[in-house]
Amino acid sequence: MPDAAMSAGEVETVDAHLARVLGAVHPLAPVDEPLTAAHGRVLAVDVRSRLDIPRFDNSAMDGYAVRHSDVAAASAGHPVTLRVVAEVAAGGADDPAIGPGEAVHIMTGAPLPSSADAVVPIEHTDAGRDTVIVSVPPRIGAHVRRAGEDLRAGDPVLAAGVRLTAARVSALAAAGHARVVVQATPRVGVVSTGSELVTPGHPLARGQIPESNSLLLAGLVRGAGGDVAHIATVPDDESVLDDELARCLDAGLDLIVLSGGVSVGAHDVVRAALGELRTVGFHTIAMQPGKPQAFGMLRRDDETPIPVFGLPGNPVATAVSFEAFVRPALRRLQGAADVHRPRIVAVAAESWRVPRAKVQYMPVAVVTPAEAGPPGSAVDTRPRVRPATSGGSGSHLVGGLAAADGYAIVPAEVDEVRVGDPVTVMLVTS
Amino acid sequence: MPDAAMSAGEVETVDAHLARVLGAVHPLAPVDEPLTAAHGRVLAVDVRSRLDIPRFDNSAMDGYAVRHSDVAAASAGHPVTLRVVAEVAAGGADDPAIGPGEAVHIMTGAPLPSSADAVVPIEHTDAGRDTVIVSVPPRIGAHVRRAGEDLRAGDPVLAAGVRLTAARVSALAAAGHARVVVQATPRVGVVSTGSELVTPGHPLARGQIPESNSLLLAGLVRGAGGDVAHIATVPDDESVLDDELARCLDAGLDLIVLSGGVSVGAHDVVRAALGELRTVGFHTIAMQPGKPQAFGMLRRDDETPIPVFGLPGNPVATAVSFEAFVRPALRRLQGAADVHRPRIVAVAAESWRVPRAKVQYMPVAVVTPAEAGPPGSAVDTRPRVRPATSGGSGSHLVGGLAAADGYAIVPAEVDEVRVGDPVTVMLVTS
Repeated sequence: MPDAAMSAGEVETVDAHLARVLGAVHPLAPVDEPLTAAHGRVLAVDVRSRLDIPRFDNSAMDGYAVRHSDVAAASAGHPVTLRVVAEVAAGGADDPAIGPGEAVHIMTGAPLPSSADAVVPIEHTDAGRDTVIVSVPPRIGAHVRRAGEDLRAGDPVLAAGVRLTAARVSALAAAGHARVVVQATPRVGVVSTGSELVTPGHPLARGQIPESNSLLLAGLVRGAGGDVAHIATVPDDESVLDDELARCLDAGLDLIVLSGGVSVGAHDVVRAALGELRTVGFHTIAMQPGKPQAFGMLRRDDETPIPVFGLPGNPVATAVSFEAFVRPALRRLQGAADVHRPRIVAVAAESWRVPRAKVQYMPVAVVTPAEAGPPGSAVDTRPRVRPATSGGSGSHLVGGLAAADGYAIVPAEVDEVRVGDPVTVMLVTS
Repeated sequence: MPDAAMSAGEVETVDAHLARVLGAVHPLAPVDEPLTAAHGRVLAVDVRSRLDIPRFDNSAMDGYAVRHSDVAAASAGHPVTLRVVAEVAAGGADDPAIGPGEAVHIMTGAPLPSSADAVVPIEHTDAGRDTVIVSVPPRIGAHVRRAGEDLRAGDPVLAAGVRLTAARVSALAAAGHARVVVQATPRVGVVSTGSELVTPGHPLARGQIPESNSLLLAGLVRGAGGDVAHIATVPDDESVLDDELARCLDAGLDLIVLSGGVSVGAHDVVRAALGELRTVGFHTIAMQPGKPQAFGMLRRDDETPIPVFGLPGNPVATAVSFEAFVRPALRRLQGAADVHRPRIVAVAAESWRVPRAKVQYMPVAVVTPAEAGPPGSAVDTRPRVRPATSGGSGSHLVGGLAAADGYAIVPAEVDEVRVGDPVTVMLVTS
């Protein structure tokens, strides 16, 4: 276990730590769910259409199904009169025969009678009931949606790894599916540590502050597709934390995330409790905030080991560490093809200072232009960012966390962000 | 009721119809919720901090709280030895007095003793227990987080109308709040109409297709913050739909959205059922897809009228109509400051044709560059879009709906999108 033995003094890169995390975390076994439970889940398998879409030739308009040859010469001056022999509505199973000089009244979506080869929209007729006068000739195949012109049975519809938006769930239904194999929802435990923490709303004595990290982590877990199955706040007491970790293992969780207590102080309880396990490593990462990170695997007896994270406890450091390492792990557990938040490239509207030789995660407010100028216009439409507070990226800046739309991620080799510099921004919308 | 009397032949703009919708829909009464139920909700009031943040002067490091004058002259060559008279951990209520030549062992986050004016980090000492040797002098105030340096009690934390991300909920907790006033979650009824529709998984006869719009609309409603409280599929039978609308009114809903049956055909049941009400209008909108739109208010007796939408039934038309009109209404019911999906400006990577004098909503796939080049680099970092299918924006293109990341919104006055043109894109991620 070289990880566990590694000195906390050796500085590692964000990428190296992320690679360690993703190397240890594997997708959970997929589950088969009805489409009604599929929204927001991650598709686990490639899905092909079971049907032609459209399933059958059908009318794109309300009008009359006709034999093209009957009306090819129709015009306003020389309209053609047809006998209306039947009506087919959407959902109708009939296939009425159409002889020469005949037409069938047809509704949008209704199956085209086999003997018809065009639809005349009602606007090009007198809208007659027993007979109909056609004054505009249709092309052959006009206003007919052909079977399979959108998708053929067997065509791919969605690829494994995509998140099932509402539109994608409905596309699966249209393609003939009633159930779908999706990635399991990870069951996650959230444990906030710190003897100074008091449940929000309770009175605060000297030295105490409201506990906020369990709300932060629970929301971030849900936003990453996880189910918060266990949540707790514990004081800086190793035996209490040991008991809590035992409860987490009992609860059949898929991932545990702790906040606080990962530094080297006398009361850093997570370091004390997890440090005894040779399967958890403590690392110093070249990032700001988020320098001290614990990560490893916990197991009980011969059960599958589950990943455990110990994040620094200051709110911005907790939030940034979650985005950098825990969210990717949760998304990997769900088998997602892309484990990261969406990123955009924006332009710095203010300058700010950047620490030396560390990746900086700066909470920023983003202003995104909503409208393009006319084609060819010279308006600069790139999104603009500025620090969410004027106070820098100090990890205790709750105000900045509230105001931020995401984090500017400034590479370690950059010393300063100047006005006009392009900046990569991770957008955080949940 | 000029709306109800308006001829369906008069073409109106998207903006005019949206203004009609937003003019008729008003925020629901806000509700007071615990923070544990606040994630993802819309804040209904401006919130100020109830606390200084930090609440009290505290240590930013593990180390020793000192009197600056004792150690101002310390150096590696002339270290200063102090007597350690106490220890304060995070959460500790003690305020030990520090006399000349004395220090207090202090942990990160612990309250700074009143008689200290600097913290010497443990790395600048011998880490002693009874006495400590200081070899690097601190500045006055070094490693001390001052009370209120992030936020002062009374400072604004969040403004009404923002969506409560996980970070924002935790910021409210840190600012001393345990509950928060958020916008109500609209209770929504979804009714899909069409005699051709069959529940997914059931056998399909000639003329029948799987019902998919209720899944589409239910997911879009949830993605817009609504609660799908009623869901149904009804055939093209006016009395059945009348009964269904009565059930919706009984269910105490805040909004009803119907799909299908809004055209002018003989079996357009929504038009038939709602058209009898003088409070629902049928409109022809200059957009593709989504041309026929029904909107108005339904009420029972002296209850508050609730908005009802009748959307065209083809899947892409239903989805686009939802984004253009229903989502803004749902967001308005929730009192959101911004009722729209996020939009970006992208560059067309393919050309495509655009209908004359209509706003086009083209399902597109978006490729967004994830990384900025180095500062000053000339790499074009703008997102690229191309149509999600090669088949145009025909409203029956289920395959395109599955592949799309959003809709390119092309103004009515643009006739063609050419490669390289800037394009406004509504991103659809839920």
